[in-house]
Amino acid sequence: MAVVLKEFQVSTKGFTDVIDVTDNVRRALSQSKVQNGLVTVSVAGSTAAVSTIEFESGVVQDLRDAIERMAPVDIAYKHDLRWHDGNGFAHVRAAMIGSSFSVPLHSGDLVLGTWQQIVLLDFDNRPRSRRVFVQIIGE
Amino acid sequence: MAVVLKEFQVSTKGFTDVIDVTDNVRRALSQSKVQNGLVTVSVAGSTAAVSTIEFESGVVQDLRDAIERMAPVDIAYKHDLRWHDGNGFAHVRAAMIGSSFSVPLHSGDLVLGTWQQIVLLDFDNRPRSRRVFVQIIGE
Amino acid sequence: MAVVLKEFQVSTKGFTDVIDVTDNVRRALSQSKVQNGLVTVSVAGSTAAVSTIEFESGVVQDLRDAIERMAPVDIAYKHDLRWHDGNGFAHVRAAMIGSSFSVPLHSGDLVLGTWQQIVLLDFDNRPRSRRVFVQIIGE
Repeated sequence: MAVVLKEFQVSTKGFTDVIDVTDNVRRALSQSKVQNGLVTVSVAGSTAAVSTIEFESGVVQDLRDAIERMAPVDIAYKHDLRWHDGNGFAHVRAAMIGSSFSVPLHSGDLVLGTWQQIVLLDFDNRPRSRRVFVQIIGE
Repeated sequence: MAVVLKEFQVSTKGFTDVIDVTDNVRRALSQSKVQNGLVTVSVAGSTAAVSTIEFESGVVQDLRDAIERMAPVDIAYKHDLRWHDGNGFAHVRAAMIGSSFSVPLHSGDLVLGTWQQIVLLDFDNRPRSRRVFVQIIGE
Repeated sequence: MAVVLKEFQVSTKGFTDVIDVTDNVRRALSQSKVQNGLVTVSVAGSTAAVSTIEFESGVVQDLRDAIERMAPVDIAYKHDLRWHDGNGFAHVRAAMIGSSFSVPLHSGDLVLGTWQQIVLLDFDNRPRSRRVFVQIIGE
């Protein structure tokens, strides 16, 4: 039984930048040598999230539109009144989507659908460099 | 320490069909012989999700109504303009709810509330046969 | 390799009470002696959720406002028509946010951002005492 933690960095543009990190996760798995178990992908920080989607530009924009409806950029946020960060919408979006995602690992590969990719969503109001973690438990 | 992956199939009607899979998960646990650990339930594919709810028809319909407000069927989706699948809403819903759910396992049973069931949500725009995975790590 | 399940209780006011439980989780970790692995925080019940946020009162209120827009208190819920609980909104909110959250554990501490706390969200329409579980797998 092995416990492995891998990390990679992703440069984002912020403003609900959606980035396919599936290959980064696969590289971490390959380095870990673990074949079967559980993989958890998580991002450190309170203005980013991890989820899965069919990564094509149309549906990525559809997701961004839905998130904009859920927590619009142009309404007043109490966070901004107090801290003047201007990214209250980003905090709300991250808390609602969630900062980690878990998926089974079988025979060395992620148990995902054919058209299902793992994505990092950066909601902040500026470019960021994000630390993404891949926690692997298995054998 | 054991790592066990079980799988079962569920036939759905699509269109935010919500199906109680708690008994399927319990059957997988029982076959695994694992008594204490972590259980992750995940669905392969980008138009379905896993969550928990008190499985009674009223609140299931309330959840379907809220998801319809979040990503309505009858607005334009860029995914559909490009691919003509007609299921852009399903992709967006799945990315927002999430395709996996983890819960502790204690003395052979799921640590859930009395009225809390694990559900598969199929958002696609047609009936589907879904592969649901139960990843168990523990002893 | 160790499998440890810890539990703590939290008294809430309900009505989307958002409570920082990071210190409770850290205490459970410290008792477990596990240094590296995976931590899953989950709440039993179908009207509460677990997520992360920068725990300051402004953004907590912003999150509560966004959840109110997503599943408003003052619309009709079929759950209430049938069961007269008056908490249909709470069930819908919990199913959409999710009742568990997983995060890597590294050198004895949670892999979170500097301003990222783990929170329990109680959506019910009355004060509750909640059982929160910390499932730790690692070494």
